[in-house]
Amino acid sequence: MKFPLTQIAQILSARIEGNADIEISNIAKIQEAQTGDIAFLANPKYEPYIYTTQASAVIVSKNFQPKQALSTTLLIVEDAYTAFSTLLLAYEKLINSPKKGIEQPAFISEKAILGENIYIGAFAYIGENAQIGNHTQIYPNVFVGENVKIGKNTIIYAGAKIYKNCIIGDNCIIHSGAVIGSDGFGFAPQTDGSFQTIPQLGNVVIEDNVSIGANTTIDRATLGATIIKKGVKIDNLVQIAHNVIVGENTVIAAQTGIAGSTEVGANCMFGGQVGIAGHLKITNKVNIGAQSGLGTDVTQENTNWQGSPAMDLKEFYRAYAVFRKLPEIYKKISELERRLNED
Amino acid sequence: MKFPLTQIAQILSARIEGNADIEISNIAKIQEAQTGDIAFLANPKYEPYIYTTQASAVIVSKNFQPKQALSTTLLIVEDAYTAFSTLLLAYEKLINSPKKGIEQPAFISEKAILGENIYIGAFAYIGENAQIGNHTQIYPNVFVGENVKIGKNTIIYAGAKIYKNCIIGDNCIIHSGAVIGSDGFGFAPQTDGSFQTIPQLGNVVIEDNVSIGANTTIDRATLGATIIKKGVKIDNLVQIAHNVIVGENTVIAAQTGIAGSTEVGANCMFGGQVGIAGHLKITNKVNIGAQSGLGTDVTQENTNWQGSPAMDLKEFYRAYAVFRKLPEIYKKISELERRLNED
Amino acid sequence: MKFPLTQIAQILSARIEGNADIEISNIAKIQEAQTGDIAFLANPKYEPYIYTTQASAVIVSKNFQPKQALSTTLLIVEDAYTAFSTLLLAYEKLINSPKKGIEQPAFISEKAILGENIYIGAFAYIGENAQIGNHTQIYPNVFVGENVKIGKNTIIYAGAKIYKNCIIGDNCIIHSGAVIGSDGFGFAPQTDGSFQTIPQLGNVVIEDNVSIGANTTIDRATLGATIIKKGVKIDNLVQIAHNVIVGENTVIAAQTGIAGSTEVGANCMFGGQVGIAGHLKITNKVNIGAQSGLGTDVTQENTNWQGSPAMDLKEFYRAYAVFRKLPEIYKKISELERRLNED
Repeated sequence: MKFPLTQIAQILSARIEGNADIEISNIAKIQEAQTGDIAFLANPKYEPYIYTTQASAVIVSKNFQPKQALSTTLLIVEDAYTAFSTLLLAYEKLINSPKKGIEQPAFISEKAILGENIYIGAFAYIGENAQIGNHTQIYPNVFVGENVKIGKNTIIYAGAKIYKNCIIGDNCIIHSGAVIGSDGFGFAPQTDGSFQTIPQLGNVVIEDNVSIGANTTIDRATLGATIIKKGVKIDNLVQIAHNVIVGENTVIAAQTGIAGSTEVGANCMFGGQVGIAGHLKITNKVNIGAQSGLGTDVTQENTNWQGSPAMDLKEFYRAYAVFRKLPEIYKKISELERRLNED
Repeated sequence: MKFPLTQIAQILSARIEGNADIEISNIAKIQEAQTGDIAFLANPKYEPYIYTTQASAVIVSKNFQPKQALSTTLLIVEDAYTAFSTLLLAYEKLINSPKKGIEQPAFISEKAILGENIYIGAFAYIGENAQIGNHTQIYPNVFVGENVKIGKNTIIYAGAKIYKNCIIGDNCIIHSGAVIGSDGFGFAPQTDGSFQTIPQLGNVVIEDNVSIGANTTIDRATLGATIIKKGVKIDNLVQIAHNVIVGENTVIAAQTGIAGSTEVGANCMFGGQVGIAGHLKITNKVNIGAQSGLGTDVTQENTNWQGSPAMDLKEFYRAYAVFRKLPEIYKKISELERRLNED
Repeated sequence: MKFPLTQIAQILSARIEGNADIEISNIAKIQEAQTGDIAFLANPKYEPYIYTTQASAVIVSKNFQPKQALSTTLLIVEDAYTAFSTLLLAYEKLINSPKKGIEQPAFISEKAILGENIYIGAFAYIGENAQIGNHTQIYPNVFVGENVKIGKNTIIYAGAKIYKNCIIGDNCIIHSGAVIGSDGFGFAPQTDGSFQTIPQLGNVVIEDNVSIGANTTIDRATLGATIIKKGVKIDNLVQIAHNVIVGENTVIAAQTGIAGSTEVGANCMFGGQVGIAGHLKITNKVNIGAQSGLGTDVTQENTNWQGSPAMDLKEFYRAYAVFRKLPEIYKKISELERRLNED
């Protein structure tokens, strides 16, 4: 397939700077692009490539100021990353069509309620009273427990497991191996050192437009619901414990864990391998750097945290800069002591 | 369903303080409970809610001393958390009945030995010579390899995988996506920089009353067995490497990893995202705080560890308190040096 | 089965020291071995056991110098660990034969291309145009998406998921629950605080002789490929993000995460729970200690890193040794200040 650059410019509401009379056959990374490809530049780290790229065209944000001569054509947009994403979405629609139909053998309870235009892959299991919304795609080997409700236009990839009574919204994507609704980790210690298992009778509610990464686990509430609010994006191998609430549009990177009953606000961003203790309240727009461990409530928006235990990000880096010099500091102090003792 | 409070008090061996002549229709969290609900108070963090809760009754431990007037009825017990757990267990038995029967299609080797009153879900795989004990429930898409022995009253949730030759006890719960018996990570370095895979010929033995969380992985031993002793509770996304032994009633929170051949004692508690190096011996009743990294043997019981590498918990927090002040300390030292040089 | 020790010596090109006229019936760990067993000694930590072991024979490296009298027979080889591994491989071939045949029900697209002597377990799914090489074993409940190519002599254990278009080489082992080709975690922030999902149109390429651990996740590239080069060994619960490249024979321990677009060189070794930021370049032969967080490019080979953020390993331990003394240092500085002020 070839597309005139002018057509792409129209889709992206882009202004063309350079040769507009070309055709594009592929989308590529700026450092690998060849003639006929379109690329994009958003991360300044990749700017040097724009001066040497073989790409026929490059999407850039309107604030991009070239520092050298360019041999490629520019498509100038409001925000290059969003425009690139829009272009990929348009391209994806061209090359991929949603799966439809029911493959055999699948296990579908007679009491399940199925929407229109759905896909159910082979070896998928749809339990009693489960509801699957229109245009939703359930891949092979997925388990949907009894009374689960799944909205419309949602994709559940191969081998994800949804325990009974959980609720999943519209336009969600749940990746392979994700487990939604496993028991919360609750045990009452007994006098003999053993533990009595506390039944977990609640569920998980995932609102609309949520993405859940591969092999991520979200435990059901003891009572009530573990809630993932709309627009939340969760990466792979993340652990969300029982009764946690994650606010709208919060983004959680891979291997992060949130302990039980913690409430996270909206529009937060958590890096990879972050740990958050239980029973905390975190307000909106809180950023936590990778590998940090948060042990206290956060009441102030637009704050940045780093370290384990986490503190203000800038303070952490100032302290860590001195940490690196500790052996030298230790010598200095010994030297100061010696000099004082000599006096 | 409605239950007289007096009946609940009897189940829990509780003393009623306040209006005993009420009926309970639901169990709820203290901060969300409504009229007709019973709640509990165990974590002191939630004490303020008891003075404002709408709950008709609240379970409290006998040592609870109200600091304000209460409008709710109290159920006074030895330990509120255990009583709450007992109540949930009784309630769960009322609303859930164990699954039974064999759904089709399932793959069951002719040489497998099946107990009575078991459940085998659709698309479950039971390999050659596998044994499934009475009243055990195997959910859909579970894989049980050849020669695996599973005890009685055990639940294996959808999509868990048990590799060949592994042994699982009675009254265990294994959550979705858990992998029991994958190969230990062992490779012999070769002179050309490549690695020769070391076959892992042992197995995993899981004793009675063990809980394994969703997507947790427990590797088989190279030789002999990786052993999880009775009463151990393991959360989600935990990694237990080959030849590890975990002692009775030890509790391991989410995303913790234990490297190969380490022996962990009984009644230990490990927080989330803890890392433990290989070939260590850890005695009984050792507590390791979240995100800590243990690199040495622990020979003393009732010790608490924190940090990476881990040290005594109190020492860690004392050192970390000073870490926060390092930039200020650095200035002080420079100032001291300046003054000494001036002298 | 019993094997003359002389036969084992021949397989391992070993020199016998002690009684050569014995038979071996089992392989065991040196600390547990009984009469009739053969064991090995590679890790010096286990040397004490060689003086008390009941093993009939022990494999040792040629540089092993006994410090006490030995009652066991020695098999002296170039490298004990490799010889042990070779012995296990020979033994494994005797006791395990590769699985063959297609179990029913399996879902195999009519357009799939199947090699010879393959195994496809029950409830496995082989999508359109997928190719499975000769002697490859696909265990039950595995999902192989459309256009996936899998080489020969590869084993995919129960419940692993390979998304469409991914490529897997020869002689690979992919453990249960591993997810290959899930979407990269890419979202373009919108002005209303929500995120637009960036389609992930690339794939994952896994070259020959690669091992992937249980429940490990490897995301597909946005464009192009996420590449795991030949001989790489990846443990359980590892996260490899989109567009990452991992160089030949690199070894990655459990629960480590590598963020998007980072390029890792050959022959690196990463400990458990390591975090590596995105868009980095790491050269060959770089070692990163457990729980470290790497945030910068590494351009120098044979370097060792520790800490979060990571620094030179030796410098980290020197600084950490002082960190432990910070409360004491803080007192000293106050004391120095007091004395100076008194002067």
